[in-house]
Amino acid sequence: MERVPILRIGDVLLVSIQVDLQDHIAVQLQDDLSQRIVETGAKGVLIDISALEIVDSFVGRMISTTAAVSRVLDAETVVVGMQPAVAITLVELGLTLDGVLTALDVDRGLRLLASRTSGSALLLREVEGDDGAGG
Amino acid sequence: MERVPILRIGDVLLVSIQVDLQDHIAVQLQDDLSQRIVETGAKGVLIDISALEIVDSFVGRMISTTAAVSRVLDAETVVVGMQPAVAITLVELGLTLDGVLTALDVDRGLRLLASRTSGSALLLREVEGDDGAGG
Repeated sequence: MERVPILRIGDVLLVSIQVDLQDHIAVQLQDDLSQRIVETGAKGVLIDISALEIVDSFVGRMISTTAAVSRVLDAETVVVGMQPAVAITLVELGLTLDGVLTALDVDRGLRLLASRTSGSALLLREVEGDDGAGG
Repeated sequence: MERVPILRIGDVLLVSIQVDLQDHIAVQLQDDLSQRIVETGAKGVLIDISALEIVDSFVGRMISTTAAVSRVLDAETVVVGMQPAVAITLVELGLTLDGVLTALDVDRGLRLLASRTSGSALLLREVEGDDGAGG
């Protein structure tokens, strides 16, 4: 399992990082992701890091670089699921993830992306309409 | 990273399996998943196995059990992203995943769930409407 899978949800690509991001996996992920953005015309990238209990400066830089590459390809990046300890570590490392949007979870991330991209009004309505029913 | 994260997308819970499912991780996942179904009132569970290049009978049974538990909790399970070699292995092992729906990818899985659950018409329309634009 040398690749992080990239899942398509409408016009958003979802990446859930669960493994240690060694150099070659991170490079492969950036390659795969930029290729998928071009192929699918995705307008947003969600990076879920809820499984990460620690981050180091390498992971922090990887996220920043991914966001920068995506932006050049006209897709916004939202990092979701960050654990409190991870947020503290990132700030202590001086990595404030400039230019990267964050949201608490995937649902909120999708809503944030929908509010920022045109043509996703239906997705926005769906996610919002669901809030009342869910937990 | 001892837990597989469970991501909520509207009324669907998404599980992307990327790590070797050792016994304790699988048991933890089933516990977590059934609890999240109850908490969120989710109507569907998507299990993405696109990162799995091999499966054994343990993983096959885990998927079947998860689907059975979810069904009792009124949520349908769809397995998505299965690689051709995995499908062949499952059949050779005699694990035909009875009662488990399958779809090629997350997008199709969401559409399948939307078509089977009432009240998700908006999600259905969103995913379908997006097909023309995407790749």
